[in-house]
Amino acid sequence: MAMRYLTAKLAQQIDEELMSAGAFSLDQLMELAGLACAQGLATLYSKERYPRVLVCCGPGNQGGDGLVAARHLGMFGYKPTVYMPKPGSKEIYQRLKLQCDNMKIPTLPPSNETSSLSQALSSSDVILDAIFGFSFKGPARSPFDEALKLISGSGLPIVSVDIPSGWDVEQGNIYGVGLEPDLLISLTAPKLGVKSFKGRHFLGGRFVPKMLEERFELNLPEYPGYEQIVELERDQAQKL
Amino acid sequence: MAMRYLTAKLAQQIDEELMSAGAFSLDQLMELAGLACAQGLATLYSKERYPRVLVCCGPGNQGGDGLVAARHLGMFGYKPTVYMPKPGSKEIYQRLKLQCDNMKIPTLPPSNETSSLSQALSSSDVILDAIFGFSFKGPARSPFDEALKLISGSGLPIVSVDIPSGWDVEQGNIYGVGLEPDLLISLTAPKLGVKSFKGRHFLGGRFVPKMLEERFELNLPEYPGYEQIVELERDQAQKL
Repeated sequence: MAMRYLTAKLAQQIDEELMSAGAFSLDQLMELAGLACAQGLATLYSKERYPRVLVCCGPGNQGGDGLVAARHLGMFGYKPTVYMPKPGSKEIYQRLKLQCDNMKIPTLPPSNETSSLSQALSSSDVILDAIFGFSFKGPARSPFDEALKLISGSGLPIVSVDIPSGWDVEQGNIYGVGLEPDLLISLTAPKLGVKSFKGRHFLGGRFVPKMLEERFELNLPEYPGYEQIVELERDQAQKL
Repeated sequence: MAMRYLTAKLAQQIDEELMSAGAFSLDQLMELAGLACAQGLATLYSKERYPRVLVCCGPGNQGGDGLVAARHLGMFGYKPTVYMPKPGSKEIYQRLKLQCDNMKIPTLPPSNETSSLSQALSSSDVILDAIFGFSFKGPARSPFDEALKLISGSGLPIVSVDIPSGWDVEQGNIYGVGLEPDLLISLTAPKLGVKSFKGRHFLGGRFVPKMLEERFELNLPEYPGYEQIVELERDQAQKL
């Protein structure tokens, strides 16, 4: 049975299901998702060679995952910096941001200008892209349109969370300005838009109960041991 | 600098600090603590040889950690069963319990009788002891006094969370009925009562910001890589 690639609508539905019938809080899901992202990045990019991680956060839940990942990366011994030009309004983002502040993780000043981003890129070793998630409707608007160009142009390795920022969730990089990550970390289950993604591809979000997995016919791969991430084979969709 | 062993009062204070100035929610801390417990157990007791884990939960936050651990153990492929004779009244325990139910993790019926515990012990391979934590004031009362005897008498390997159940948090096994675990997983920082503990000893709860660690002079050991647990050397208190 092939692993299922989710439409935006189905991804939304599963998320809601996890929090209603599944009884998970957003705090729990975000903590495990963000931890998986931090561990995924740490698997490919060592803190010795890539200590300075620029964690780019959007204004939605994807940005929340990014803040959690930034904190765990700080715990692992990296030197993260947060770029979050449009801080989300939900109370949880303020708490997650404060947790980063308490770790002395710097955040670039919120702004529509991208000059601080340019500077930060020139002193970073790797990007964690948590700008847009499965609820993204393109094309990207200011300041993110400009930010995507700068990030792409930096030549730094990019780790994208769930869907590379700027990509259509179902149709992929149709706007032509989306990031081209070296590593993609899908959460819960991969989205339709990344079906032909060619880079390294991990799956995280090891919290989907079997009954939910079966109901939505996700056919998730088996995670190894007690890990929170599993690597997907490049032609898993075809092979299984 | 020696790692600090905490009094009950200091443990309480650090917990409160994490949730006030630290801006952590109980959901977050419990998720990371429970995950560390599940990973700690999985490190020593493989699911192939020890598939049936009896997760014994008290009515407090320690029991909440146990429920989180039970869920993660289920995710890892173990067959956990929950023994929680006095379910906690906090809303979070009901959610955590429902998350276990959704994983088809059975829970023994709440009861003051210990007959179902006896039965469950006879079909278990390892115990996760999450009965009493750092707020325990002994001696243990019914039904836990009887439960501790049955668990000790089962001869099964025991993994205790934070403080072996029945032990005084600062003075150790002074009541004589406390469990003698094979593996102890201390959370945040070890407690005074386990300073002379002789078994394998892990530390979990990788969420203490450096500034808090320094303020309370915890001198925590370094966690390896992206792990959520670190093994403490048996004479770490003396050696460091």
